[in-house]
Amino acid sequence: MATNRIFNFAAGPAILPLPVLEEAQRDLVALPGVGMSVMEISHRSKPFEAVIQECEANIRKLAGIPENYHVMFLQGGATLQFAMVPLNLLAAGETADYITTGSWSEKALKEAKKVGNTNVAFTAKADNFTRIPKQEELKLTPNAVYVHMAGNETIHGVEFHQPPDVGSVPLITDASSHMLSRPLDIAKYAGIYAGAQKNIGPAGCTLVILRDDLLQKAKANRAYEKLPIMIQYGPHAEEKSLHNTPPAFAIYVMNLVTRWLLKLGGLAEMEKINIRKAEKLYAEIDRTGFYRGHARKEARSRMNIPFRLPKEELEDKFVKEAKAAGMDGLKGHRSVGGLRASIYNAFPEEGIDALVAFMQEFEKKNG
Amino acid sequence: MATNRIFNFAAGPAILPLPVLEEAQRDLVALPGVGMSVMEISHRSKPFEAVIQECEANIRKLAGIPENYHVMFLQGGATLQFAMVPLNLLAAGETADYITTGSWSEKALKEAKKVGNTNVAFTAKADNFTRIPKQEELKLTPNAVYVHMAGNETIHGVEFHQPPDVGSVPLITDASSHMLSRPLDIAKYAGIYAGAQKNIGPAGCTLVILRDDLLQKAKANRAYEKLPIMIQYGPHAEEKSLHNTPPAFAIYVMNLVTRWLLKLGGLAEMEKINIRKAEKLYAEIDRTGFYRGHARKEARSRMNIPFRLPKEELEDKFVKEAKAAGMDGLKGHRSVGGLRASIYNAFPEEGIDALVAFMQEFEKKNG
Repeated sequence: MATNRIFNFAAGPAILPLPVLEEAQRDLVALPGVGMSVMEISHRSKPFEAVIQECEANIRKLAGIPENYHVMFLQGGATLQFAMVPLNLLAAGETADYITTGSWSEKALKEAKKVGNTNVAFTAKADNFTRIPKQEELKLTPNAVYVHMAGNETIHGVEFHQPPDVGSVPLITDASSHMLSRPLDIAKYAGIYAGAQKNIGPAGCTLVILRDDLLQKAKANRAYEKLPIMIQYGPHAEEKSLHNTPPAFAIYVMNLVTRWLLKLGGLAEMEKINIRKAEKLYAEIDRTGFYRGHARKEARSRMNIPFRLPKEELEDKFVKEAKAAGMDGLKGHRSVGGLRASIYNAFPEEGIDALVAFMQEFEKKNG
Repeated sequence: MATNRIFNFAAGPAILPLPVLEEAQRDLVALPGVGMSVMEISHRSKPFEAVIQECEANIRKLAGIPENYHVMFLQGGATLQFAMVPLNLLAAGETADYITTGSWSEKALKEAKKVGNTNVAFTAKADNFTRIPKQEELKLTPNAVYVHMAGNETIHGVEFHQPPDVGSVPLITDASSHMLSRPLDIAKYAGIYAGAQKNIGPAGCTLVILRDDLLQKAKANRAYEKLPIMIQYGPHAEEKSLHNTPPAFAIYVMNLVTRWLLKLGGLAEMEKINIRKAEKLYAEIDRTGFYRGHARKEARSRMNIPFRLPKEELEDKFVKEAKAAGMDGLKGHRSVGGLRASIYNAFPEEGIDALVAFMQEFEKKNG
C-alpha cells in the first residue's frame, strides 16, 4: 500500500486496485503513442475504440458472457436502470415480478410501478431485510414479463449466492455491488446491470448486459418509439455504447480493472480471495457476541458487512477510533445503523487483518 | 506544452488545460489529506462535498448565475437533456418553440416531438445550416411554454453571439460547446445545459442551470410524478446533484477547470483570448479564397471552425499531413465534410499559429 493511502471501507464509490490507479496516473496527461489524455480524445477515435472494445472483450471473457448478450456502457447509475428496465420491457397489460431484499430492490420496484403492473413476488421487509427468499416462498406470476432482483444489497448486506429459480421467465438482476466479484452463471439471467463504482471502476458508468431476445422485445413494445433515445436500449446496443459521447474516462479505468482481474486469474480466483476476506471478518463478528451481524448467515454478503455493537455510543466511538487508526468509511447506513465494512475486490486482505485486530482490541477495552 | 503532447483540434471530448491535467495526475492516487483517490471516496463524504460545492460556487461566480437558478451536475450528456427539457416542461396542450440551426438543435426537436406539441420557429436547414435567424424571421408561438435553441453548433460551426429576443417566454439553450467560453447573459435564459466535454471538463457530466420558476412548473406538470426519478429535475436540484452517485471524477476535474478560469481572470478574459484565436484562423481562411468557411460571417462560431478546400482529395491530404505535423482531430464531420478546427478554451494560441503556418504552406504547395 502506498504509504499515503488508508484502508477504505466505503460502500461506493469505493476502493480501486492500486496498480490501476498508478497506471491511470502515469498516463493521465498523455496516453502513450497518442499525445493526448484519454479524457481529451474523441470517443470515435481509434485509440478510444481500442479501449472500449478491449473493455467489452475483457468483461465478456471474465464473466463468460455468451454471444447473444449485448454489453453496454451507459450513464445514470443503477437508478436510471430501475426505470429503463420497465420502460423498455414492461408493456401495457403485462406484469413484472419484483423480489425485494433491501433498499435498492425496493427503489427498483418504485420506478417500475410508475410504468406498469408489478407483483411483489417476495419481500423481506417484515424481517428488516435480513434475508433472501426460500424457493417455495416466491409468489411468481405465470407469464410475468420478467422477474427483477438485486443480487447484492449494499445497505443490508444481503446477497443471493444462487439466483432463484424463475423457470422460463427472464430474470433481471441489479448486480451493482457484486458484479465481477465472483463468477455469475450468466445464462440464468436475461439482464444484468451494475453501477461501476464498487468492483468495476469509478462512478459515472453503468455496465448493462442484455440478452438479445429482450432487446427485440423492447423494440416491439408499442411505447418504445416514444421513449427518449437515451432511454431506449437499442441505440446503445447497436452503436456499441457510442450513440452519444460515453463516460470515456470511467470506461478507460474499467478497462484497466478488467486487465487487473485477468492478471489475477479471473473471477474464480477473485471469488476465493473474497470468500477468505469475508470469512475472516464474519468469524470475528461471530466470535463472542459483542458484535452482531445484520443479515442471516445464509444470506450474508461477501461485499458489504453491516454489524452492530451493544450500544450506539460504542458504535460512534468505534467509527471515530477506527478512522484515527487509518480505517475510513466504516459508519453504517442510517437505515440499518451501526457499522458497515465494504470489502470489494480491490480491498486488501491486510485491511481485513487490521480491522479484525482493531475489533479485538476495541472489544477488550469496551466489552 | 509537454513535449509528448500534440495540438488537439478534436470537437469533443476535447483538449483540457494542461495545468488541470497535471494537478489531477499528481493527486490521482491519493488526494492530499484524504489518503484515497477522488475516484474512491463516497459522494457523501466531506472531501467530495467540498469539491462539488466549490465547483458550483465557481461556476456561479464565473458565469454570474443569480440565486434563483439551480445548478446541477447530471449524466447522459446533452442528448438526455433533449428529452428531459420537454418531459419536465412541456405538458399536454402546451407548445414549445424550437429554433434549429444545426444537427444538435434538430436532435433536440426530434426528442421534443415524442413528448408534445412543437413549433419550428426557425430553421436554417434550407441554407445547409450556415446561419442564425434574423429577429424578424422568428415565427414564435404566443404563450409558448419555452423556446429552445442551441447557442453553438459544433458540426456546422454556427454560434449565436446574442440570444434572440423571445419576449417573456422562457428561453432554453443547449450551450454544450460554448458554455464558459465567454460571458452569457444568464438572465436572458431560463435554462442552460452543457455537456462538459468541450470547455468544462471530461465527458460524463452535464451542467444544467435551471431557473426556479421552471422547476416549479415542472413539478406542477401532471405527467411529472410518472417520470423516472433520474429524469425529474426536482431531486437533482433539491439534493444538490447527490440524489444518486454523481460522476464524481468528472466533477472534480470540472472544479479544477473552474479554478483555472478564475485564475485566468474569468470569462471576459477568456473571451478575449477566444476572439483573438478565432479571428486569426478566420483571417487565414478568408485570405485568398483557397479555403472556404462553412458558416456565414455573422454567425461564425469561435469554438468550431469548419472549412473546405477546393477538392476533397486535398482535404484528405490536409488531414493526413497535418496529423503528421502534430495537429490531430482536423477531419470535419461527415455531414459538412472538409476540415474542422475546434479551438475550445484550453486550445493554446501556439496551436492556432501552427495551423495558420501549415495552411499557408499547404496552399503554396497545392494551391
